[in-house]
Amino acid sequence: MKQLEEKILADGRVLSEAVLKVDSFLNHQIDPALMQAIGEEFASRFKAAGVTKILTIESSGIAPAVMTGLLLGVPVVFARKRKSLTLTDGLYSAPVHSFTKNETNDISVSRDFLGKDDVVMIIDDFLANGQAALGLLDIVEQAGAACAGIGIVIEKGFQPGGKLLRDKGIRVETLANIKWMEPGHVEFYGEVPN
Amino acid sequence: MKQLEEKILADGRVLSEAVLKVDSFLNHQIDPALMQAIGEEFASRFKAAGVTKILTIESSGIAPAVMTGLLLGVPVVFARKRKSLTLTDGLYSAPVHSFTKNETNDISVSRDFLGKDDVVMIIDDFLANGQAALGLLDIVEQAGAACAGIGIVIEKGFQPGGKLLRDKGIRVETLANIKWMEPGHVEFYGEVPN
Repeated sequence: MKQLEEKILADGRVLSEAVLKVDSFLNHQIDPALMQAIGEEFASRFKAAGVTKILTIESSGIAPAVMTGLLLGVPVVFARKRKSLTLTDGLYSAPVHSFTKNETNDISVSRDFLGKDDVVMIIDDFLANGQAALGLLDIVEQAGAACAGIGIVIEKGFQPGGKLLRDKGIRVETLANIKWMEPGHVEFYGEVPN
Repeated sequence: MKQLEEKILADGRVLSEAVLKVDSFLNHQIDPALMQAIGEEFASRFKAAGVTKILTIESSGIAPAVMTGLLLGVPVVFARKRKSLTLTDGLYSAPVHSFTKNETNDISVSRDFLGKDDVVMIIDDFLANGQAALGLLDIVEQAGAACAGIGIVIEKGFQPGGKLLRDKGIRVETLANIKWMEPGHVEFYGEVPN
């Protein structure tokens, strides 16, 4: 997605060969018009997939997921990263390890909002090692729902998550797939490397 | 806002005289079309206020804030509830006590995204005791920015937060203001009780 790649080149900051900071438009400050464009792109790619629900994870997945949900006409559910006091039982949950933070948290989704008749599109802001996506897939499986595929805003194509998911036969649609990067430079794949 | 009040009556669940669960359309599952309508209402009320930035707090404030930001044509910044490893310095921060969870967390916003020239609209999902709103106002003050007012999706008008903020002279716009509630019943104020 050209608009997103240009935004990453203009406003992203590569802190190391593994860390891309996009907190000026995605992870902390959010550019709503860009989120709308991202939603249009995801909705266009998944419009024939029979999606009944979008599943994402708090917090940075919410904005692109809600814009996509608006255009596909389906609800969005965001997985929580820890259990809240008003949601103690009736949960699907899965462990997710964060290599960035070097910690494992449970993510959880209420059983009220995901069931066996759902066709779920998963959306997340980043795909690197694939741990969050695997946790969300685990929850979709626990619900007995079908997974229509995964929409990723930015994939670090040089990390193993994308291959791991695609090797499982899961449809992964990435809007900006980074081939490699270093401070001052980002290079994208021309296409998703399926 | 009639559409929101009807949604609360239809799908909200009053667990006690203080706890309203709206996780089927706002706090866990999100209704994107309702979020768009909420964004339209907030944007309409604040369109003449010269807003340059919307400030909210993760996670449930993000969806209504992004829809409002899209319509006002301004960026959204969400305060984080704990410091992340890639955002360790250059922060505004403030303590926020949650009576629901009986704990105090710091919320923080990068200094990169809020400054003295900003006119900030604060958006949050709930207003009860006003602690989150006071924390966000503290951050706006630390930035030397102006506050155009606060947009609240659901106010528990029987709790002290709304009066506390309005007594400070802050403009508070509430879309659904609950006069009282008990399991099976919710009654709204006809208008915002200024």
